[in-house]
Amino acid sequence: MGRTAEIVQRATDDHSSSPTTLIEGYQAIREASEALCKPLEIEDYGIQTMPDVSPPKWHLAHTSWFFETFLLKPYLKGYREFHADYVRLFNSYYDQVGEYHPRPQRGFLSRPTVKDILSYRAHVNEAMQQLLGQTDHSAWADIETRTVIGLNHEQQHQELLLTDIKHIFACNPLRPVYRDLPQISATAAPRQWIEQPGGLIEIGATGEGFAYDNEFPRHKVYLQPFKLASRLITNAEYLAFIEDAGYDRPELWLSEGWKAIKEGRFSKPLYWELRDGEWWQMTLSGMQMLDPNAPVCHVNYFEADAYANWAGKRLPTEGEWESVAAVNSVEGNLRDAGYLQPQASETEGLQQLFGDVWEWTQTAYNPYPGFHAPKGALGEYNGKFMCGQYVLRGGSCVTPANHISASYRNFFYPADQWQFSGIRLAEDVS
Amino acid sequence: MGRTAEIVQRATDDHSSSPTTLIEGYQAIREASEALCKPLEIEDYGIQTMPDVSPPKWHLAHTSWFFETFLLKPYLKGYREFHADYVRLFNSYYDQVGEYHPRPQRGFLSRPTVKDILSYRAHVNEAMQQLLGQTDHSAWADIETRTVIGLNHEQQHQELLLTDIKHIFACNPLRPVYRDLPQISATAAPRQWIEQPGGLIEIGATGEGFAYDNEFPRHKVYLQPFKLASRLITNAEYLAFIEDAGYDRPELWLSEGWKAIKEGRFSKPLYWELRDGEWWQMTLSGMQMLDPNAPVCHVNYFEADAYANWAGKRLPTEGEWESVAAVNSVEGNLRDAGYLQPQASETEGLQQLFGDVWEWTQTAYNPYPGFHAPKGALGEYNGKFMCGQYVLRGGSCVTPANHISASYRNFFYPADQWQFSGIRLAEDVS
Amino acid sequence: MGRTAEIVQRATDDHSSSPTTLIEGYQAIREASEALCKPLEIEDYGIQTMPDVSPPKWHLAHTSWFFETFLLKPYLKGYREFHADYVRLFNSYYDQVGEYHPRPQRGFLSRPTVKDILSYRAHVNEAMQQLLGQTDHSAWADIETRTVIGLNHEQQHQELLLTDIKHIFACNPLRPVYRDLPQISATAAPRQWIEQPGGLIEIGATGEGFAYDNEFPRHKVYLQPFKLASRLITNAEYLAFIEDAGYDRPELWLSEGWKAIKEGRFSKPLYWELRDGEWWQMTLSGMQMLDPNAPVCHVNYFEADAYANWAGKRLPTEGEWESVAAVNSVEGNLRDAGYLQPQASETEGLQQLFGDVWEWTQTAYNPYPGFHAPKGALGEYNGKFMCGQYVLRGGSCVTPANHISASYRNFFYPADQWQFSGIRLAEDVS
Amino acid sequence: MGRTAEIVQRATDDHSSSPTTLIEGYQAIREASEALCKPLEIEDYGIQTMPDVSPPKWHLAHTSWFFETFLLKPYLKGYREFHADYVRLFNSYYDQVGEYHPRPQRGFLSRPTVKDILSYRAHVNEAMQQLLGQTDHSAWADIETRTVIGLNHEQQHQELLLTDIKHIFACNPLRPVYRDLPQISATAAPRQWIEQPGGLIEIGATGEGFAYDNEFPRHKVYLQPFKLASRLITNAEYLAFIEDAGYDRPELWLSEGWKAIKEGRFSKPLYWELRDGEWWQMTLSGMQMLDPNAPVCHVNYFEADAYANWAGKRLPTEGEWESVAAVNSVEGNLRDAGYLQPQASETEGLQQLFGDVWEWTQTAYNPYPGFHAPKGALGEYNGKFMCGQYVLRGGSCVTPANHISASYRNFFYPADQWQFSGIRLAEDVS
Repeated sequence: MGRTAEIVQRATDDHSSSPTTLIEGYQAIREASEALCKPLEIEDYGIQTMPDVSPPKWHLAHTSWFFETFLLKPYLKGYREFHADYVRLFNSYYDQVGEYHPRPQRGFLSRPTVKDILSYRAHVNEAMQQLLGQTDHSAWADIETRTVIGLNHEQQHQELLLTDIKHIFACNPLRPVYRDLPQISATAAPRQWIEQPGGLIEIGATGEGFAYDNEFPRHKVYLQPFKLASRLITNAEYLAFIEDAGYDRPELWLSEGWKAIKEGRFSKPLYWELRDGEWWQMTLSGMQMLDPNAPVCHVNYFEADAYANWAGKRLPTEGEWESVAAVNSVEGNLRDAGYLQPQASETEGLQQLFGDVWEWTQTAYNPYPGFHAPKGALGEYNGKFMCGQYVLRGGSCVTPANHISASYRNFFYPADQWQFSGIRLAEDVS
Repeated sequence: MGRTAEIVQRATDDHSSSPTTLIEGYQAIREASEALCKPLEIEDYGIQTMPDVSPPKWHLAHTSWFFETFLLKPYLKGYREFHADYVRLFNSYYDQVGEYHPRPQRGFLSRPTVKDILSYRAHVNEAMQQLLGQTDHSAWADIETRTVIGLNHEQQHQELLLTDIKHIFACNPLRPVYRDLPQISATAAPRQWIEQPGGLIEIGATGEGFAYDNEFPRHKVYLQPFKLASRLITNAEYLAFIEDAGYDRPELWLSEGWKAIKEGRFSKPLYWELRDGEWWQMTLSGMQMLDPNAPVCHVNYFEADAYANWAGKRLPTEGEWESVAAVNSVEGNLRDAGYLQPQASETEGLQQLFGDVWEWTQTAYNPYPGFHAPKGALGEYNGKFMCGQYVLRGGSCVTPANHISASYRNFFYPADQWQFSGIRLAEDVS
Repeated sequence: MGRTAEIVQRATDDHSSSPTTLIEGYQAIREASEALCKPLEIEDYGIQTMPDVSPPKWHLAHTSWFFETFLLKPYLKGYREFHADYVRLFNSYYDQVGEYHPRPQRGFLSRPTVKDILSYRAHVNEAMQQLLGQTDHSAWADIETRTVIGLNHEQQHQELLLTDIKHIFACNPLRPVYRDLPQISATAAPRQWIEQPGGLIEIGATGEGFAYDNEFPRHKVYLQPFKLASRLITNAEYLAFIEDAGYDRPELWLSEGWKAIKEGRFSKPLYWELRDGEWWQMTLSGMQMLDPNAPVCHVNYFEADAYANWAGKRLPTEGEWESVAAVNSVEGNLRDAGYLQPQASETEGLQQLFGDVWEWTQTAYNPYPGFHAPKGALGEYNGKFMCGQYVLRGGSCVTPANHISASYRNFFYPADQWQFSGIRLAEDVS
Repeated sequence: MGRTAEIVQRATDDHSSSPTTLIEGYQAIREASEALCKPLEIEDYGIQTMPDVSPPKWHLAHTSWFFETFLLKPYLKGYREFHADYVRLFNSYYDQVGEYHPRPQRGFLSRPTVKDILSYRAHVNEAMQQLLGQTDHSAWADIETRTVIGLNHEQQHQELLLTDIKHIFACNPLRPVYRDLPQISATAAPRQWIEQPGGLIEIGATGEGFAYDNEFPRHKVYLQPFKLASRLITNAEYLAFIEDAGYDRPELWLSEGWKAIKEGRFSKPLYWELRDGEWWQMTLSGMQMLDPNAPVCHVNYFEADAYANWAGKRLPTEGEWESVAAVNSVEGNLRDAGYLQPQASETEGLQQLFGDVWEWTQTAYNPYPGFHAPKGALGEYNGKFMCGQYVLRGGSCVTPANHISASYRNFFYPADQWQFSGIRLAEDVS
């Protein structure tokens, strides 16, 4: 675990953390966002290629808006907002804060310019430094908690930045390169089954380290005995499914997925491309030949589920996944490793739990028993999306290493492909 | 429990049932479908007012197709199909049977006429009588099982018939009356809380009586202690939510629900109508003044969930609901009671569990642990819809009494309003 | 010219017509509408297969509404309207009369039943008889004029009835037969060019015989010398265009037409169907093999224009067409001939000007110089549609013979295929 | 007329023009495009706010593509194309050149960057200089003709640049200012009627000066006597229409326009905005209070036609307009005047014919008699759009002065508002 992570986590665990370290964490995370944008041209910052994608500069501004809205305005005496219109322009979806610019029109905002937004960030950073220096503030505990949320929020947007840049570049026939990236050449280890006894276990955040509201309360779940695959499904394995007419056999698919296929909405992992009989895929390094040993990536829930059906297996539940992950350390091909693409691994035994790709579970994203969204606008962060989505676990190759944990619940709609998502199988023990 | 129910249930319990009784059950249920259509004009049989709605005559034909496809063609030697095109016209969604007429175009089929379809039914009935007489058939066990599924399937379509006729008549400015119906005038009993200890319990079909595949396998679930409301939410209670600006307060709504409201897709229970300051609603008896004591009906999941938030409560999970229902007898305002509209009840204590309205649970419609859809086209009956829907429990005033049970899982999309659905609250025990 | 036609025309020419004859005309035309529906099943009367199509019973009701609204209510003392809701249900598009039932939902109206609508017709007919007997009515001139408009309106809907029944039956996989129909077997005459000198000519209604407002005022138009094809384009000729990759060559198409082709909105005449290498087409007699000698039918403007480009010719203007038609008698394969399908003709010389198919002209449907829509709701009949449509001339095999004339302007959108429309070429004289 | 205009026009009139002058014209017009972009930030160059709008940098690239495709590749020996992908990226709609990037996705192209596109322009300019120096080229006549077309094409895109920048800035809640602009303060002169005798006249390009293919051939048209308003409709006059419930009275509107109003697609001129009871409008100088004396701008055909109906007048035909304009000199508030917004004028008599706003005529955009689109891809320039659009005349405040003439035919769809379009009335002489 890196230094920043330690700082942030300690800050969250108890409120005895010295403000200096929180400030350092703040600086490191905020700088990281801007560093991620360094390879971009000014022109790249403003593009929105579909409603789910936000322009890179919008991410830079919105994360600053978060600190301005939830920390500076309520807690920093005399704080002067940077620009009156930004409250609306960079509000993502917090209805209790007020109206917001329509999501599909984020790509219409040529102004504020990149330069304006960097000034906005500097303005917010300066004020946040000031606020984080006021350890004797009567609301210090809230300030600390919200700052840590704000930093985790910024890290989520760092992942989105890379996810969205990939989409933006993939929509461009010139297929630009974000960065030349290293790549591991290896033969995938054979898949093994990790058998688990199940029983009455506990899942959810323990209270150690940062966790979002949707990871609480920790609670009991009863699991049947089950087996979990030791590694992720590879491109070669997924290709076998395609070549076995996987996309033409309705019996493998959920009804909605099959309908979407017939309407031509998807027919392969998002960035795959067949050129003269060979499969390529778009990566943050531009077009690359498909590595058969690397984990398949950018599949949606329908594809993950159909693949599992084809293989005669199933996807794990989030309880199953967490029960296994909770006793493993958070290590893997996360963003800090610098690959920004899932990688093959020849290590035997349980692997790739963290990093590489978000793993689809068969669990609908619902509140945990006893969950209550916090009062106020911050309560809109997670709770109001608990409908129609599925839980994904484990982080990906674009997730900051100190942002992910065994109890972390990510969620996407079953048709979504643009996030770094893949497949780990499970199986009943009969 | 009526006679037909007994016949059907006994036929399912074990395969020792005498074929005569199964034949009687078959006759009774098949006749009931036609009896439900008696009040219709020929013109009413062909209308489809939205893709979810099927024309009444389509229901009559499709249920016959079910017997023809899954029983007569595979098992009755020398069976001659009624019409070569019907295999396609009246297949609802069984991809493994073959292509099917597009769902939104069911209302384009002026031919076959009602008379043709009644002939089709007679043809199938005659052949089914013959088949059900062959108790020495080598596949008799399968024939019995599939016949019982076919009869439950027909009963589901009987509920859909009434549900769809209501929609068809409500879309007609003349607001036709399906039938003059009795109505109970009563003051709703005060709402009480039934407290439950939770713990490790079992839900799912026990194997006694008929159950669909999606009710299996019976399995353990861990429940926190909880409280269940003794009765359904009434129209008067729901009206208080509306009058407290319920539809204008984003903090009460799931994000998708709020988006749908802003797009004007719903703003009140489906059949409510404000006329000169008074609330009316469309019923199968035509327009009626809203009964404040009767349970609210035709609300979608978003509305049920928002109402619960507004009331400071929540919806029950399906495990909670079933744990309570399992020890209660299946009684209530079901179709056989003849009201065809939810009714007020002044009885104190736990009530309205069965009948009146389907009760939204907060549980996404997912497979039970260990669930496997059966092989073949019949496996498409339930399994392929396990995505994006919510479970509803308890049946409604248009559900046949011998069709419902404590383990029965109905499912609809969160935006659906046209089925007879309502609200029962639950609450955590702190 | 048939007897009915004479009656109607004489009634229009001057106001000295004896009311008896107008009454006879009224009866004949009203009965004809019902006679056209005789081959239908009750189920056929209510179907709407696309927004442009109206259910047959809606046509029967709307034409009665027309007489009720524009004649009985304003002029017949003591007239009692048949049903208060019909004013809204059967208003097509007259905003000045009031609100109307949404066009795409005409197929939702199972009630009023066919029987109800026939009673409505009888009620209106009785009252109209009464009104037409009041020749001493102070507004008799208006009554006569409006009655004649109403009868021509009814005749337009007779054409629509057949056009819409064809669409309804063609959308049904059973492909029902409306009526067994005779068919002419002949070799198409060779195409010749009729050369015309052009110059300053006059077009528009002369005032003799009935004409709609949009045919006025008669006015001068200057024409270049031109040539008009002696006959319509045949199925064989159109097939040659298809086989020469006509639908794959963008240079032949208007930009909007090409876009529609790429979106899969059309790729052949509406009712053509290729079965085992042979072309068939849906007709009012059900599926028939394509007659290579018969005129091509159910092509839209884009197809007519692309065909002309492919042939190195062009479509005529409405001025060119009318200048030729004006000196020819109104004869041809019109509805009264009983074919209800365009027919091959081996006669040489100018032919098929009237009947067979409506002929697309290259003239946008615009007001004639000096045109003013009449005041009041009747002014909405034609004027408000003068935007985005093209003029078609000459009537078709489903147009009543006494309804069409050389100055008659029909109009459809360039993408419309469902009316009986075809192609006659023209050419510049260089 | 400015110097550039003279150069270009002389170049077109006869082929004896010295190449030096054509080169100078080329340079001046190409530089003007870049000069128009000077006030933009890099971020502004890539935005597409609706499918009709193209990003500014796309205009800069496409106009270069035009010279590359139609001049350099066919005529300049040894020409090396700048980038292989640009043939596809910057082809607007020339199907005969090949496939093109989907129009609604022009805003997804962050690459090529603005810098890349300026290099592309420089590359093309250098090659064009070379080509235009080859006056002894065997295809010199074609080269001259096509260069002049390319320069007029570039001028059309200069108008589109300003039109689209206005839309882009108006979609931005910050309402950026393109340039501070002068404004005339004046009282509009009283409206007078210019009476014309009509008769058999000629319209269309005379062959003097440049003209597009769609202005040919010059041909005879017969006009009834008519009156043309001496000036454009002002904002104050249009406001009176609004305040007289103009948008609520169906009898004033074409059917399609009324449908669009009810669907909420427009309800006032595009850039009008009511703030605290006062009308403002977005301009290229940002938000400005509405000048009651200035001509109304950004109205669509439906609005122009409805206004005329309300005023008891009509729109002119293109023949009427041209017959008057042909004898007037091309002078007015055109782009070179530097206002970039229509201006009030207190001069009496016929005025504002050229410049200020494009004037909607009631004439559908159709081919002139005898028109033939040229062979080859250049033939797609105008001909394939002759469907569904209306002709506008006279240029606007963003049209280059030496680009417009009395015979120039512009065309837009009746619902389009974003171009600088306004209203001049006409009237029949009774």
